This record gives sequence, structure tokens and C-alpha cells, in this order.
Amino acid sequence: MTLAAAYTAVSATAPLEPGTVQRREVGARDVLIEIAWAGICHSDIHTVRGDWGDIAYPQTVGHEIVGTVARVGAEVTTHAVGELVGVGCMVDSCRECDACVAGQEQYCARGFTDTYAATDRDGSITQGGYSSHIVVDEHFVLRIPEGIAVEKAAPLLCAGITTYSPLRHWNAGPGSRVAVVGLGGLGHMAVKIAHAMGAEVTVLSRTLAKADDARALGADHVHATGERETMKRLRGSFDLIINTVSAPVDLDAYLKLLALDGTMVCVGAPPERLPVQVFTLFQNRRSLAGSTIGGIAETQEMLEFCAQHRIAPDVEIVAADQVNEAWERVLAADVRYRFVIDISTLPTP
Amino acid sequence: MTLAAAYTAVSATAPLEPGTVQRREVGARDVLIEIAWAGICHSDIHTVRGDWGDIAYPQTVGHEIVGTVARVGAEVTTHAVGELVGVGCMVDSCRECDACVAGQEQYCARGFTDTYAATDRDGSITQGGYSSHIVVDEHFVLRIPEGIAVEKAAPLLCAGITTYSPLRHWNAGPGSRVAVVGLGGLGHMAVKIAHAMGAEVTVLSRTLAKADDARALGADHVHATGERETMKRLRGSFDLIINTVSAPVDLDAYLKLLALDGTMVCVGAPPERLPVQVFTLFQNRRSLAGSTIGGIAETQEMLEFCAQHRIAPDVEIVAADQVNEAWERVLAADVRYRFVIDISTLPTP
Repeated sequence: MTLAAAYTAVSATAPLEPGTVQRREVGARDVLIEIAWAGICHSDIHTVRGDWGDIAYPQTVGHEIVGTVARVGAEVTTHAVGELVGVGCMVDSCRECDACVAGQEQYCARGFTDTYAATDRDGSITQGGYSSHIVVDEHFVLRIPEGIAVEKAAPLLCAGITTYSPLRHWNAGPGSRVAVVGLGGLGHMAVKIAHAMGAEVTVLSRTLAKADDARALGADHVHATGERETMKRLRGSFDLIINTVSAPVDLDAYLKLLALDGTMVCVGAPPERLPVQVFTLFQNRRSLAGSTIGGIAETQEMLEFCAQHRIAPDVEIVAADQVNEAWERVLAADVRYRFVIDISTLPTP
Repeated sequence: MTLAAAYTAVSATAPLEPGTVQRREVGARDVLIEIAWAGICHSDIHTVRGDWGDIAYPQTVGHEIVGTVARVGAEVTTHAVGELVGVGCMVDSCRECDACVAGQEQYCARGFTDTYAATDRDGSITQGGYSSHIVVDEHFVLRIPEGIAVEKAAPLLCAGITTYSPLRHWNAGPGSRVAVVGLGGLGHMAVKIAHAMGAEVTVLSRTLAKADDARALGADHVHATGERETMKRLRGSFDLIINTVSAPVDLDAYLKLLALDGTMVCVGAPPERLPVQVFTLFQNRRSLAGSTIGGIAETQEMLEFCAQHRIAPDVEIVAADQVNEAWERVLAADVRYRFVIDISTLPTP
């Protein structure tokens, strides 16, 4: 066991504070990563606050991790010391079920192991990336290709793959009309990726406050969902809607915007059940679907895609001692569009 | 205009009674059909009772129609006098929108014209098949192929195509695991058709009361949804669920039964909005979809499929003066599985 520096939650309500986490010994197939950058995801806050269930404290979060390989186990073949690598939302899965075998570890029948706040194989609770080091099985370690600015790469591991995967699965591309609901961390990546895939991209936001931003990110059109006439005019207009909003929304209002055989994919989810009018699904043979992150191979594919298309998240870099303030700003939706923690600023334990 | 005998609704609450409907002159592309058989669909009752909105009375319903061509217009090329034909839920559509051009008239952007209780092109209200004759544009007239018992064919035009279309669209076939929720008029056809397509078919019913029936119809498995342990055991078991129940159901409970990339298609819909847990959709990348009848070409394909596979609905034949009693029995779910009215028993006006 080695002790790593961390910025950690000691309760559901207290500010994060400097601390440590125990990292396991580097096993035969493990990779020790010296973390350089960690993205801040809204999920980090939900988890610590107990919004998704009780957790044990202290808990270190963070599942958008970029760093350098510092050591590898004897049997590791896919990564080498010095390599720039990343870790996303998963650090393990059963490797045996149909989903795992198909490279869809995110849908592991036994449930994948979350990068933080999950029970690991050895019974310990996984600890995330607001930390100086992490030890991860090589299968769950991604290569960060050249062409992506290293300080911006971390959010691709969650926000990037979470939007890339459904865009790819539901065939966004030339000739397809994609709408993105919500322009936050996920939404801004959805716009960039869908645009790079060649789709006609529309941003649907409550107001037009971010219209210029949306266009700069690659949106062809921007509409305010608060305008009743606009929503009526847009009925039947989209082949795919990526809903990135994790607050309750009026699903029917968006479903009505789908064209024949269109799908609305939710990548953010509120804890509440949301009402759906089945008649709305009848019309145009519409589908309402969910999608969660992406498989490891697909995440690597996404990274290569982003490098090739020179896509990176818009980020604001913060030091460790600014994380609590950054969390407040995430809750206030006051970030364009993702915070990344400079892990070199972590106090040495 | 010609007067046709009919069994008609004079109010939302009164029993149906003998009456007449005006049929338009046979236009250049029209087909006059002498109706022999008319199926009773739950929609007939919903419409007359005003469950789906107010309608004008008298109203004749019925959208599962089989009869013989008695006359054709000058420009009709696809049907000839004496031919055995059918009419389903549509008698017109715009013919110009993308859906119509694609042969998906059921998703016509301007809305297709229902066989009854809809405003026709000439401004009149369409009148359905509980009647001696009907005049329909040739495009919406189907050929009834040899190999289907004529007195059983009518329910294929609604119950048959409503289940065939989603089974085909979502690729039911060898290797796919299809569950059918509810074993009524629609459900029993879904079982027969899915079985004939080569799928592994499971019937999910509240109790096991119809288990023997389900197996006789072609189901490989039957489970009671009222059994909590069974529902738990079945999680992740199906690629496609056809929900034929038009009462409110717990969508989440069924969605959880879907395997990776599985879809639950609703072909029955309650007027109420139903709550959905988006997290349930996240798992296994599940979809909730709707589907309504099928296109004209697909309906013809379904009829050929049923003839080839010797599939027909299980029907109970009733005379015109038994229709009110049959409606009561439909409401009590006391029919295995579809009533068909022998139109020759209609009183002459």
C-alpha cells in the first residue's frame, strides 16, 4: 500500500479538504499513474452530497483523470512507463458477461466498478482522481493521443465519451439532424462531437443567453425551449436528441420534436420518475432511450476521434484549494464548460 | 351517394342499433366493397364512448374489414370486381410527405385519415366497417391472399399489423427473445407472429390463467408478472418486449427485463402519462418506443406472411344483434381472442 495525496470529502456537507488515500500495491496487470489533471464532474458532487445514496467518508472523488504512467506490473503489455494515459468512470468489470466480452463494459451484467465510491474486488472502496496517484488495471487505462492538449483531456473521459457513445450508436453523421438539450459540460461536448461527425446540430436551451457560445462550439442553430411557438414549429424536426439535462424536464415536449424513427437519448437523469405520454411515442415511431458513458475500446476510439478533429473541452483550470469554490460554481451552472484541477497544486501529505 | 346498412352508435352511452350510412359515389380511383366480416377492436368502443375525445353521432365504427370488390372506378388498376379484399385503420393519407412516400402512411406528417370518426377529404366524417358496404381509395385496399380463412382475416387488418410491424421493425427472428405483455386481441397475434418469425416467445401475463392458451398459440414460456421473484429473475432477459396493454402499467418493471440494447414497444396506450425512471433506461442502453399499425405495403406483406405461415386470429363469430353483448365482453376481457361480426346478419335498412 502507498499513500497518495488527495483532496477529499470528510462528510456529505463539509468542504473538501487535503487528505490522503491508500493505493494498492501495483499488481501484475496494474498501472500506477501519477495524476496531473482531474476534471470536476457534477456526479462528484452528487456522490459526496449523498444524492444518489449514502456513502462512507472520507471519500475522494474524480473520474476524469489524466496523468503519466509511473510504474507497471510484470504482465502489463498495453502501457509503458512515461506514457500519457487517462482513466474514466470505470476501473473494473466482470470481463465475462456478454456485455464485457462485446467491449461494452459500461453495461456489465454484474455492474462495472466505479472509479470512486464503489466496492473494489479486494473489498476496499474505490477512491477517485482528486489525488496524486492511482493504481488501475491496464484494461481500464486509456492512451491519450497526441493532438489533445493534456490539460484539457481529462473531461473527455466522462463528458466526452458520454456524448460520443450515443452519437455514434444512433448514427449521427452527415444528413442527420441532431439536437442537444442543455449546454453544460456534457452538452458542449455533444455539440463539438456531433458537429465533427458531420451532423446538422441544433442547441435547445431554456433561453438564448448562450447562443453565441453554442454557435462558436459548432451549432448550426440555437433555439430557446421557453418559446412556445418555437417548440411548435420544431415538431418532427430531429432524428436524434441528446438530453444532457439531469434535472426533471418535460420529456413529451422534446419527444414531439422527433422525426420519423427518431430517438431521444437521456445521458443525464434526475432521481425522480418522469411522466411520458405513450401516444407521443406512437407518433413517428419515436424512442426514448438512455445511454451511460461508453466501453473502453469506444473510449479509446473517441480519444482518437477528438485528436484527429482537434476537439477538446473548453476548460477552466483550478488549483486544489479552489475546488470547493469550483463545486459551488458547478452547482450554479457558472462554468464554461468544465473545471479541471491542476493536481500539481495538491498539498503534499 | 348510396345508402349502406350499418350497426351504429347514436350516442356515447346507448347500445348500438341498426341504421344506415351514406357512402360516396365510386370515384375514379375508388373501390366499392361489399363487406362480409368486420372485427371488433377495443378502439371501436373507446371512440364511441368518447374516451379519446368527443365525436359526432350517429357514428359507425369498425376498422377490421373484409369483403368482396363490388365495383371499381375507371382508373383503378390494383383491384378487380370479385376480389377478396380488406381495409384496416386507414382510408387516406397525404401521399406527399416523407413518411407517405416511404410507404409509412401510418406516420403521415399531416395525419392519416382514420377509417371511422375522422374528417375525410370531402369534409364528411368517415364511417367504419360495421356496415354492408364501404367505398375506399384503391391505395388503402389490401388483397386477402389464399390460405387465410376469410371469416378470420378481418382482425389481421388491425391486431395483426399492429403487432407484425414492430416485430419486423425491431428484427424479431431466430435468436431473439421476445416477450409479449398481455394476451388479448393484440397479444395473441403478437405471439403467433413472433413465433412464426422464429423468435423465442415469452408471454407475460398478470396470472397464469391463460398459460395453456399461450403455449397453444406458440409461446415458449409463460410467466406471471404478479410474482415478484419471477420478475426479478427475468431481469435482462429480453431483446424486445411488445406491450399490448392499453391500461396503465408499471413501465419500469418491464423495462428492467430488457437485455443490452433491448426495446420495449408500446402498441397500446392509456390516456394517462406513465412515469419512467431514466436510470432504468441507462442500464443496458434500453429504449422505450411506440408503434402504431403499419404501412399499406407492410400490411400486404403481413397478410402474405400470415397466409404462408397459416396464421389467423382466434375468433368468435357474432351476428349483428350480438354486437352490444360482444362489446360488454370485450370490456370484461372475456373473448379469446377477437370478435368478428358476420355482416350478412345486418338488418336491411
